Amino acid sequence: MCVRCREGSAKRRDGPVAGRTARRRVVRITLPGEGGAAGLAPRADLVAAEEPLGIRVDGSALTMTMRTPGDDIELAAGFLVSEAVVRSPADITEIKLCDGTACGHGDEHEMGNVADVTLAAGVTVTAGARRSFMTTSACGICGKTSIHDICLLPQAPLAGDATCFTAAVLATLPGRLRDAQRVFSRTGGLHAAGLFTAAGELIAAREDVGRHNAVDKVVGWALLAGRLPLAGCILLVSGRASFELVQKAVLAGIPLLAAVSAPSSLAVDLAEEAGLTLVGFLRGPSMNVYAGAHRLPG
Amino acid sequence: MCVRCREGSAKRRDGPVAGRTARRRVVRITLPGEGGAAGLAPRADLVAAEEPLGIRVDGSALTMTMRTPGDDIELAAGFLVSEAVVRSPADITEIKLCDGTACGHGDEHEMGNVADVTLAAGVTVTAGARRSFMTTSACGICGKTSIHDICLLPQAPLAGDATCFTAAVLATLPGRLRDAQRVFSRTGGLHAAGLFTAAGELIAAREDVGRHNAVDKVVGWALLAGRLPLAGCILLVSGRASFELVQKAVLAGIPLLAAVSAPSSLAVDLAEEAGLTLVGFLRGPSMNVYAGAHRLPG
Repeated sequence: MCVRCREGSAKRRDGPVAGRTARRRVVRITLPGEGGAAGLAPRADLVAAEEPLGIRVDGSALTMTMRTPGDDIELAAGFLVSEAVVRSPADITEIKLCDGTACGHGDEHEMGNVADVTLAAGVTVTAGARRSFMTTSACGICGKTSIHDICLLPQAPLAGDATCFTAAVLATLPGRLRDAQRVFSRTGGLHAAGLFTAAGELIAAREDVGRHNAVDKVVGWALLAGRLPLAGCILLVSGRASFELVQKAVLAGIPLLAAVSAPSSLAVDLAEEAGLTLVGFLRGPSMNVYAGAHRLPG
Repeated sequence: MCVRCREGSAKRRDGPVAGRTARRRVVRITLPGEGGAAGLAPRADLVAAEEPLGIRVDGSALTMTMRTPGDDIELAAGFLVSEAVVRSPADITEIKLCDGTACGHGDEHEMGNVADVTLAAGVTVTAGARRSFMTTSACGICGKTSIHDICLLPQAPLAGDATCFTAAVLATLPGRLRDAQRVFSRTGGLHAAGLFTAAGELIAAREDVGRHNAVDKVVGWALLAGRLPLAGCILLVSGRASFELVQKAVLAGIPLLAAVSAPSSLAVDLAEEAGLTLVGFLRGPSMNVYAGAHRLPG
């Protein structure tokens, strides 16, 4: 089966552009003896859509990612920030979704699923960032050819951000992000990233089957809105904090990354190196500060 | 900072081989008014280790992944199954972790973090599988150059597996997998994959910061134990079910994939195409069957 068009499949797609959710038939099984009606019940269920998105820069393939359709322009823009290719909206001349004609790549399968980026004169993709591969919905830093190439960060880039935050505000953020998750509430199946002010005001929230895509969508929104670097802001992610998410936060100039779940060892170490405040297990009235605790003076 | 050796960092690694967990200092913040002692408490915390692992086949780099150290030989073996490179233990002559000498790649950074695979005569990595890039802890099918290359599966490969399962057994599996998760219980930060018989007996369980790595470790264990294809077995994953996890299950010959959380649209569609039974939201006494419900006759 071709995962894009469902060629040779009974599920062949009707049109080129998919929605954020998809309806599928499901059999709901409830066991007896636990309250409620036991038995098998066929029903329709909404699931989070997952589709490949290619990102092409100046006509050459840069990457592909498995993502939830929607905010694709922002996703492409944010990916380029996370790869340290662009830093301001002026670095990008145009981003558009391939319509199968104007871009000269007339593959029906690419319509709506390839973002074509034209960089400004003088802005180039470095050899390290130029890749030709597929990333999944859960992958953010694929394509590096050497362990030494993984880390894109300069020394302690966030050390100059003296913003202070309070634990009382942080404790309110998971609830605010959940309230903003429209697709999750219908499917139970998406990661989310939310950008907040130090006072806890929601600036932007995005969802995706991949947590790194959700972050790229938020960062891409900020880039295109001329709001980078995001000094003084908080980035909250719905899952765990890995190396890649720390790197994305730092490259966007965000001084505090908070995660509902656990960080990895490399996430903690990179946060410390970069001067990022890293909060994990942000649940209810308690949280762990793994790096940069000076920004939470208590 | 070099993410492997922490060159130039205060966290420079003591030895070449890391553990599955790492100790980091953390400030635990508890807000007042919620019961328990409010305040800031510095303490030591265990986090899940995340480190890059390179996989080199016949001397050439195939991929890198961000993984939790441990079961690295199985991880490399399972990755090759998931890429449709190998199907039996006889396809692999040897897998060993680079010790910086015998493999002829004497980079100190690679010691313990590169798996060197020697394939049997006549077994080759196809052009589609041969890649040169970095995958994160959360990525499983990176490196495909075209949307058409993503899917590695033949037509309905599991249609011949007539095993029947019961919802009553499935309902017991998340508890059994959690009991087997030794690192999660200490860090709260790992994905898990568990292989079970149709009767619910645990065959193998593995953990990783990346859910696809946890699955590759289980599948690699099965390959090296001569147990592929895993006809009649159940694979349970701790998180969501994406396209990539469905593909891995199918390539290992597993007829039932169960996930504690939601599937994506592409996971459902691929499961249906392949003849895989896909169960989602396996929680307590209820579950959703998204594909292959004939194997759960009720």
